[in-house]
Amino acid sequence: MNERPKVVIVGAGFGGLWATKTLARSSVEVILIDRNNYHTFFPLLYQVAAAELEPVDIAYPVRTTLRKLSNVRFIMAEVNKVDLVAQVVETDGSAIAYDYLILAMGSRVHFFGVPGVDEFAYPLRTLEQAITLRNHILSCFEQASCAADANHRRRLLTFVIVGGGPTGVEFAGALAELVYGSFMEDYPTLNTQDVRIVLLEAIGTVLSNLPERLQHYTLTRLHEKHIEVRLKAQVTRVTYKTVQLNDGEIIPAETVIWTAGVCGDPLAQIWGLPVTRTGQVRVKPTLQVEGHPEVYVIGDLASVAENNHPLPMVAPVAIQQGMLAARNIIRQINTQALHAFDYKDMGTMAVIGRNAAVANLLSRWSFTGFPAWLLWLGVHLLRLIGFRNRLVVLINWAWDYLFYERVVRLILPRKRKPVSKGILQ
Amino acid sequence: MNERPKVVIVGAGFGGLWATKTLARSSVEVILIDRNNYHTFFPLLYQVAAAELEPVDIAYPVRTTLRKLSNVRFIMAEVNKVDLVAQVVETDGSAIAYDYLILAMGSRVHFFGVPGVDEFAYPLRTLEQAITLRNHILSCFEQASCAADANHRRRLLTFVIVGGGPTGVEFAGALAELVYGSFMEDYPTLNTQDVRIVLLEAIGTVLSNLPERLQHYTLTRLHEKHIEVRLKAQVTRVTYKTVQLNDGEIIPAETVIWTAGVCGDPLAQIWGLPVTRTGQVRVKPTLQVEGHPEVYVIGDLASVAENNHPLPMVAPVAIQQGMLAARNIIRQINTQALHAFDYKDMGTMAVIGRNAAVANLLSRWSFTGFPAWLLWLGVHLLRLIGFRNRLVVLINWAWDYLFYERVVRLILPRKRKPVSKGILQ
Repeated sequence: MNERPKVVIVGAGFGGLWATKTLARSSVEVILIDRNNYHTFFPLLYQVAAAELEPVDIAYPVRTTLRKLSNVRFIMAEVNKVDLVAQVVETDGSAIAYDYLILAMGSRVHFFGVPGVDEFAYPLRTLEQAITLRNHILSCFEQASCAADANHRRRLLTFVIVGGGPTGVEFAGALAELVYGSFMEDYPTLNTQDVRIVLLEAIGTVLSNLPERLQHYTLTRLHEKHIEVRLKAQVTRVTYKTVQLNDGEIIPAETVIWTAGVCGDPLAQIWGLPVTRTGQVRVKPTLQVEGHPEVYVIGDLASVAENNHPLPMVAPVAIQQGMLAARNIIRQINTQALHAFDYKDMGTMAVIGRNAAVANLLSRWSFTGFPAWLLWLGVHLLRLIGFRNRLVVLINWAWDYLFYERVVRLILPRKRKPVSKGILQ
Repeated sequence: MNERPKVVIVGAGFGGLWATKTLARSSVEVILIDRNNYHTFFPLLYQVAAAELEPVDIAYPVRTTLRKLSNVRFIMAEVNKVDLVAQVVETDGSAIAYDYLILAMGSRVHFFGVPGVDEFAYPLRTLEQAITLRNHILSCFEQASCAADANHRRRLLTFVIVGGGPTGVEFAGALAELVYGSFMEDYPTLNTQDVRIVLLEAIGTVLSNLPERLQHYTLTRLHEKHIEVRLKAQVTRVTYKTVQLNDGEIIPAETVIWTAGVCGDPLAQIWGLPVTRTGQVRVKPTLQVEGHPEVYVIGDLASVAENNHPLPMVAPVAIQQGMLAARNIIRQINTQALHAFDYKDMGTMAVIGRNAAVANLLSRWSFTGFPAWLLWLGVHLLRLIGFRNRLVVLINWAWDYLFYERVVRLILPRKRKPVSKGILQ
């Protein structure tokens, strides 16, 4: 009865979800697998970590987006192994056979082997990590409000962000807005002078893929927001209480956020796929794996071979690759010629705070300040509509974001780590 | 400089928070301690467990409610011990000396020593427990959607609620609304006939403190909602896969929700306070502990000695006791006569679902159906305003509740338990 080719898609991020949508109502059967039952709107993840948005604001249940697509089935499971020979995906639940496979498992944070980072630094790549970081930051303020020792208090209120890429810059800006906004009114015993936000970047500039004018603007704005930007600063070690730099300086801090490196999901290599130095899977311009024409790799996990310089690990690349992989599978089934991937780069944006952003469109037009911020807001709201699909939710979201209305900053789940002792009089 | 008497309040539930508010702007210094940085609106907790409301809808940060109260300080800490002789509260952070103490740590779920309950059943007394239960229920649907074996699928979709009090009845009703609402459209491979909701009650009726007419109405409505109500059914054992009853019946179920028993926080007894059989602290009508006129106990933790029958463990009792304890402390400082607690019982309400509720006002007027539901909604919305304090949030809340709009049903944090194996074709 079931004669339709079966396409299994691993990962419900931007790439996997757009591939699924492109295959909806086509002549194939689609099975989408993800370890979570929700899609995360990654571009706003840093705002959850900075307690500016609630997790529900940027997560959307996969099943609800697929509700009307009768040829699509969702399975919440952890993928343990892909058997490329037997053409089977093994999960912690069922094993799933495939005719075509799209791997879209995305990327992981990369620590470059710096001692202590794995143990003490906070990554910021998943919604669970963002919530863990948020709980930790809020707990630091709670502990600081009772800390009798001034050095201990300052260490609790020092936040070191490693990496001057978009995530590092945006998170630093969001954290500054939290700290220097109405939040501190909740802590009458604390002083904003005790708070220190440090942004470390190993090379000589931030947002290195943007034009110089935008980099300068960004540095100026970060400075205005009391963020200490340290260029050419490399981290050599992280401990429970400190960050150590290559020039010998030691910054006392109980919070280190690591946004400096990203690599492809290491499972790809374990499963025997050909990977680059950064763990991305080498694919042909058609997004197929050499020797496995039935296997496509897209998004952060893919390294397109024909390209001279690597594509950025951003949502638009994943979305366009997801759509192309889906269409190439249909072409393959119909024995048509496959298309090569050709990235349509609409531009790059980063937001440093309300009314402050940088945007570079079509590598040609640069914007800064309020116009760039409006553009950023517009693009992100439009993208979110696709998920939430209801005007009322959009209004809610905008309201929350503009007026800090619904964000309630729960420390949930509660951290069990004991705080330091002392007598309070 | 600091000559004002120091009042320490342990617990930021209804009792502790109202005691704090009553002491605000008075001549004492107040320190409020809670293990969480938020207050939980307990009467709607079951709706979070049933994925009808988001955690943020019923939690509110303690610091924000106290923002304008200059004589109040909040400390987020776990209280390890109260030293009644030295008059010191020892926490996992600082130790805090007090002149007056109000204990408002509330109640815990009581398992009556039934084997397996502690290990396998889900309690429903805190926000973290509600989220754990919600994640488990949603995970059961995810697993059931891939379960090849029909018995396994039915066991995953059988939800046994133990206890026919307000929490059990309200949760059963909310779960039925979830299951028989639009939620199941997300699971095209599942059938509502596979879902079983069982409500077990040890005695011969549900909501035993309400008039008989309301009990009958409740039973009829639960039946209409396809909830199997089993009266005079006692649980003798819970295992990973079953609930065993005193008549020998074994119900296969992977989800058991225990709402049957409640006792005072066991710490009170450990600290040497005089407790009843249910772990509540015996207090004088003034809410003071015998022999310790500087120590007050309120809310679920208090057992008022002069009363012939115990007061219900509900928010109005805690609120009224919190206000009285606060006023008695002021009277004590001014060497005035203390007042005895006299509960003003406005009535009891329980909701079985949208448009279906029971209410008994001033032990005199009984309502059922839509009028009772409207009354319930009005009272709870009014109470929530006190916390949220902004009309827009109230509107959001009402909108969410009425139209299921913002509830996104994330399984977050994700459960790590492996699911059963099988081959999916």
